[in-house]
Amino acid sequence: MNKIEVIHTPALLPLYELKDKVVVVIDILRATSTMCVAFKTGVKKILPVANPDECRMFKEFDFIIAAERNAVRVEGFDMGNSPFEYENPILADRNIAFTTTNGTKAIKMAKAMEPHSILIGSFLNLSALCSKIKDSQKDLVLLCSGWKDKYNLEDTLFAGAVIEALGSDFEISDDAAISSHSLFVQHQDNLEALVRRSSHANRFSLLHLQTDDVKFCLQTDAYPVVPFMEGEFLVCE
Amino acid sequence: MNKIEVIHTPALLPLYELKDKVVVVIDILRATSTMCVAFKTGVKKILPVANPDECRMFKEFDFIIAAERNAVRVEGFDMGNSPFEYENPILADRNIAFTTTNGTKAIKMAKAMEPHSILIGSFLNLSALCSKIKDSQKDLVLLCSGWKDKYNLEDTLFAGAVIEALGSDFEISDDAAISSHSLFVQHQDNLEALVRRSSHANRFSLLHLQTDDVKFCLQTDAYPVVPFMEGEFLVCE
Repeated sequence: MNKIEVIHTPALLPLYELKDKVVVVIDILRATSTMCVAFKTGVKKILPVANPDECRMFKEFDFIIAAERNAVRVEGFDMGNSPFEYENPILADRNIAFTTTNGTKAIKMAKAMEPHSILIGSFLNLSALCSKIKDSQKDLVLLCSGWKDKYNLEDTLFAGAVIEALGSDFEISDDAAISSHSLFVQHQDNLEALVRRSSHANRFSLLHLQTDDVKFCLQTDAYPVVPFMEGEFLVCE
Repeated sequence: MNKIEVIHTPALLPLYELKDKVVVVIDILRATSTMCVAFKTGVKKILPVANPDECRMFKEFDFIIAAERNAVRVEGFDMGNSPFEYENPILADRNIAFTTTNGTKAIKMAKAMEPHSILIGSFLNLSALCSKIKDSQKDLVLLCSGWKDKYNLEDTLFAGAVIEALGSDFEISDDAAISSHSLFVQHQDNLEALVRRSSHANRFSLLHLQTDDVKFCLQTDAYPVVPFMEGEFLVCE
């Protein structure tokens, strides 16, 4: 039976082996949610980039450049990291170079460890993601992006949601997987209440965002596309 | 109001500031449980030591030497890390040099970061520990020892038990604290069932231990002493 492991933050990634495993990168608030929206809108490719300086260099190659640090858009960039921005039809068939505080870093770290494949997960694509995971017949690693290498609540909660959705097809013997699953089972009837208590949701409320990104990112199966890494790029079938 | 943070593994310790905080080191299976038993038996001082080679050097100074690696006693040492061994009255008034896979490492790492104080926590001393924490009027860090830098279930569960026992006197705004608390609340009526699922309990059952260390280490308040660091030593009032 294939196994599930959960890694709570990229800081713990070096303790794991990813070879021949499927890795799902999770950054619920908001990078991996935003990526699902972007591909649903018709974006062609997303290039995850390490930092704003490197990201800016792709402007001349006809990329839209997007950068977020500490939950706000970096000055001088075309776009930030709110999923609402990525519903704009002007993005159809465009390529985006994207850097965020946590999510794109987690993707790049996972890529460097040469897993079988890297998928993008969020509540927005939960069921489609789980079908793809089941089809793979590989061991699974759920990699939470966390917040600056610290544990976060919403990514762990989503790891638990994936475990619940996969059901009995996978073996849950890893302690972090047992605990993530338990967190989801306890709070599944009111995800929003829990996520509103998270430190990142509190960061948003201090910023007085114009949009309710928390509520948006908890819409299960609203954007059923599964972005995956192909070479250096995220693409979608 | 004083704050609570939970650190799931010593690998994440460098992300935190410990200055002027009380740190509780947690290694339920079994180092911090065993330490409570040892002090209740009348042990004078415990010296946490990094590794078996360094530990052995204290033999000539009239220390009892104790070493555990991968859940078993290291050959050539007087004692291992099962709490049952430490009920032997022959240990009264003796000093022990002690090294374990996870717990003593976590203590030494925390010590190097100069917190206000370091306390030893386990289910065996839960209420006594919480009184001491409340008396301190300091911010609190619950440091789980984990397993070889990975997350573990039983230490997180105990962090949640401390948060529950402290009640409304502390602010729980840290994501890892919210999640640990949630884990305890969900499983408090049957801690043993959860801990039996943990990877460390599985390690024990593969070793066919003669004693039921899991059950022993879940006895709430059975050994109400609170070991703390004084210089390089653990002592008890």
